[in-house]
Amino acid sequence: MILISEVGPRDGLQSIDRVMPTEAKKRWIAAEAAAGVREIEVGSFVPPSLLPQMADTAEIVAFAKTLPGLNVVALVPNAKGAARAVAAGVHGMSIPFSMSETHSLNNVRKSHTEMLAEIAKVAAMAHDAGVHFAVGLSTAFGCTLEGAIPEEQVVRLAAAAYEAGVREFSLSDTTGYADPAQVRRLVRKVRDAVGDALTTLHLHNTRGLGLANALAGLDEGITTLDASLGGLGGCPFAPGASGNIVTEDLAFMLHAMGYDTGIELDALMKVREIVAEALPGEPLYGFTPDAGLPLGLADRVG
Amino acid sequence: MILISEVGPRDGLQSIDRVMPTEAKKRWIAAEAAAGVREIEVGSFVPPSLLPQMADTAEIVAFAKTLPGLNVVALVPNAKGAARAVAAGVHGMSIPFSMSETHSLNNVRKSHTEMLAEIAKVAAMAHDAGVHFAVGLSTAFGCTLEGAIPEEQVVRLAAAAYEAGVREFSLSDTTGYADPAQVRRLVRKVRDAVGDALTTLHLHNTRGLGLANALAGLDEGITTLDASLGGLGGCPFAPGASGNIVTEDLAFMLHAMGYDTGIELDALMKVREIVAEALPGEPLYGFTPDAGLPLGLADRVG
Repeated sequence: MILISEVGPRDGLQSIDRVMPTEAKKRWIAAEAAAGVREIEVGSFVPPSLLPQMADTAEIVAFAKTLPGLNVVALVPNAKGAARAVAAGVHGMSIPFSMSETHSLNNVRKSHTEMLAEIAKVAAMAHDAGVHFAVGLSTAFGCTLEGAIPEEQVVRLAAAAYEAGVREFSLSDTTGYADPAQVRRLVRKVRDAVGDALTTLHLHNTRGLGLANALAGLDEGITTLDASLGGLGGCPFAPGASGNIVTEDLAFMLHAMGYDTGIELDALMKVREIVAEALPGEPLYGFTPDAGLPLGLADRVG
Repeated sequence: MILISEVGPRDGLQSIDRVMPTEAKKRWIAAEAAAGVREIEVGSFVPPSLLPQMADTAEIVAFAKTLPGLNVVALVPNAKGAARAVAAGVHGMSIPFSMSETHSLNNVRKSHTEMLAEIAKVAAMAHDAGVHFAVGLSTAFGCTLEGAIPEEQVVRLAAAAYEAGVREFSLSDTTGYADPAQVRRLVRKVRDAVGDALTTLHLHNTRGLGLANALAGLDEGITTLDASLGGLGGCPFAPGASGNIVTEDLAFMLHAMGYDTGIELDALMKVREIVAEALPGEPLYGFTPDAGLPLGLADRVG
């Protein structure tokens, strides 16, 4: 069983300027849950003044919680956002922790030490509320400001977050810098520090290596992969340039490889229509939806 | 050392309707050789009436042979084409052998038995001429006519071709059906039959899994990967839908992983300009050329 965690309603929608109507978000999330997707990051508890695309996250959480069997998660930037997420009743929340201190200072104006204090606070809040909590080790594979990030630094900061009470981690290739050899090395090294608490890879397809990196992670025992329907959120200057790995292609790959994801591929492909209708003209990526499933796939996998 | 074998001038150009001018082909091949690409499939010895795009292959072979250090190869459909290839002075030639008998009958009007006889003839010609010879086990991962192809059938036909004198094989995902688990299985099984004579994977990115499949092959000891500059030859109905894996993205992946390919990445990216200029409006695929190389890549790989 490999968990595909759909992050399009958060990472995809926050990366485009337009605001998807709340009702369209609900249709999207409901259709994807009905297709068998078991976890969706439905939004982000950031100040609406910063990201108006995410202003309706509390309403979306409430709706998503009515969908049977769906794990409803949200991103929180800090303890303030975490309090809103807990109040909204999320099943889980995650906080990005940038491995590049320059990026952290630029992005959330916090040093690594300050972020670790924030993370300890959120871990305690999550524990008290009985809410699942994860830390995303962002820019772990490199940073557009600092360049290469020493692997020892990622290991040290993951260990520090573990000390602060974190029991679930994802390694995030925020910048699309990762290669499969690096994925294998870093997963091993971080697991040496925090063990099975490292469950997840969050990958972008910026340089076309997204699914190869996912494969490298699977080989190392990663059990959760973030992905975005239609690779939503890609940078407009180049098709697919910055979006997350595409849920449809990932689901096909895992299915073909014989992994159970719980997802019904044909139903998943149809969810694209909802997103395309809600965001006319917005480029949707992915190859499998256009090419269709291979003839005789069942014979092969079976 | 991993060999990237550029197949764009053959597989890419034969898949688009327009005919690239001979002089542009020469500029492309020269620039790519200068960027460090060590093998190029420069054309195909098929009847010009069938593929006018390949009518100048003998002239292209003669030109490419003047480029220092370049291995000049061509595709041949049968013994007649092989005789033309030998006369043109190729360093190597390859013949596609479709694992789907339906596809073989439709495509070259030959049964498997007839193809094996043809292959034996070409193997003998190649041996006599001192020309390198390879067989491409096409539709090995599935066929758009037959669907799934039994793996035992691929193994059996590879073994029969080995008996017929073939000492180099590639596994070809002609249809873009392959997944990484299948690549691993089939490489192992075919190697059990023909050993290290299986050197090469020829992959398409039809469902977005091309580089993941390449990674799976590398893990199994594959040492040559076919690729096409700009993924040329993609099906126009969907970006990147049927083209070969993209040389630029593959070269970046291998470089980042620490493999030696002999290719200078910046020079390789610039070759796109030649192709774009010669085929205005033709879509070129690949993510790395648009995204650029990661900041600090040398620190990471070094």
